[in-house]
Amino acid sequence: MVYNKEDIVQLPKSFRTQLINSLSGFKSVTLVGTQNLAQQKNLAIMSQVFHIGADPALMGLLIRPDSADRHTLSNILETEQYTFNHIHGAIVKQAHQTSARYPQAISEFEACNLESEYIYDFQAPFVKSSKVKIGLHLEERVDLKINGTILIIGSIQLIDLPNDSINTDGFLDLNKAGTITCNGLDAYLGTIKLERLSYAKPDKPLESIPY
Amino acid sequence: MVYNKEDIVQLPKSFRTQLINSLSGFKSVTLVGTQNLAQQKNLAIMSQVFHIGADPALMGLLIRPDSADRHTLSNILETEQYTFNHIHGAIVKQAHQTSARYPQAISEFEACNLESEYIYDFQAPFVKSSKVKIGLHLEERVDLKINGTILIIGSIQLIDLPNDSINTDGFLDLNKAGTITCNGLDAYLGTIKLERLSYAKPDKPLESIPY
Repeated sequence: MVYNKEDIVQLPKSFRTQLINSLSGFKSVTLVGTQNLAQQKNLAIMSQVFHIGADPALMGLLIRPDSADRHTLSNILETEQYTFNHIHGAIVKQAHQTSARYPQAISEFEACNLESEYIYDFQAPFVKSSKVKIGLHLEERVDLKINGTILIIGSIQLIDLPNDSINTDGFLDLNKAGTITCNGLDAYLGTIKLERLSYAKPDKPLESIPY
Repeated sequence: MVYNKEDIVQLPKSFRTQLINSLSGFKSVTLVGTQNLAQQKNLAIMSQVFHIGADPALMGLLIRPDSADRHTLSNILETEQYTFNHIHGAIVKQAHQTSARYPQAISEFEACNLESEYIYDFQAPFVKSSKVKIGLHLEERVDLKINGTILIIGSIQLIDLPNDSINTDGFLDLNKAGTITCNGLDAYLGTIKLERLSYAKPDKPLESIPY
C-alpha cells in the first residue's frame, strides 16, 4: 500500500497519529524521573530518547511542550538534573500508566506504584526496580521551530547497570538486562537476538561476534 | 555496577563507545537511500532515526559529519530528497555491510547486493527488498553545537508498506512487517509482542488492545 503526501494529509487524525508514530521503527522506551526545587517528584514514560555522542557522553530527549510531559520539562529546566530508567516486562503496565495526565501535586512514582530511589548525591529520582539507570545533567535546549518540540541534550553523569549485562568490550546486552522496546504509541515488545556483526570494511567479509 | 562521571571519562575509548551507544535502549535501524545530482546512488545504515511529529508528519536523522555517513549528508543537502528503508532479518548482513567506507564512486546498493527501486516520481532510491519504505523531503538542518552532529528534519512525502501490516486504527505492526531493532553499534534483534495498552487515564484501569 502506497500513501503519497496528499493521502497522508487527508488521513483521519488518530489514524495518522498511530501510523506516523510507528514509521520510525522500534523505539527505546524510558521512564524519565525528575523533581522540582520543592522535591516534588515526577515520572513520565517517553519514547523519544536517543544517542547523541559517546565522547562526551550525551543523550537526547525530544519533548512536546503541550503534552502530559510538561511537568518533566519544567522540572528539567528548573533543576537541570533528570534520570532515564529502562523498562522491563514486569513493569510495563505501571510504566505505561505514567502517561496519564495526573495533576502536578501527584507523583507518578506513587500513583503508578513504582518506588523511587536516590543514588549517591544525584539530585533526581531513579526508578528502583529498573535494571538500567542513567543520571543526566542538562547541557543544551534546542527549540525545533518546525513544530515547537524541544530537544533536551544531557550529559551522562551516572550509570547503574546489572554486572552480568556488560560484556568485556563495553557492549551493554539490553536483551540480557530485560530492556523492552516499543512500537508506536502503545505497543511493547521483548527482543530475540539475531546477530552481532564485526566492523564492516569494503574488502573483508563480516564475522559474527558471539554474545 | 555504578559508573560516575569520572569513571566514564576514564574508560578506554572503544569500551566507552560500545557502552554509551547501548545506553539509549533499543534503536530503530534504517537504510538511508540518497543520490547526488549526477544520480550516483548511496546507501547507509543508520540508527539515529526518530519520530518528530505526526502533523505535519516529520522524522529526524542525526548524522555525524566526519563519519562514513558523509556522502549521505552531502546528497541530502544537494537534492533535499532521501529515503528510509526498514531492515528485516533476511537483509541484516547486507545492511550492516553498507557501513563500510566505500569510495564515493561506489554505490553501496551494488557493493552490498541490495537492489534499488524508484517509486512514482520520487527522486531518491529505495531498497527494493525492504518491507517499509518512506520518502522524505529535507525541511530543516539543525547543527548541534555541543558535538558537531547535524540533525536533519524531513517531511514524509511517501509511505510504502505491506497491506497486512497496518491495523484498522492506523497502527503499523512492525513485528508483522519483520522490522528488526538494534542494540549499540553492531547487534541486531527481532521482537516478541508483549502487550498493546489502552490510552492511560488517572482514574481508569488499562486494557489490553488485541493485535
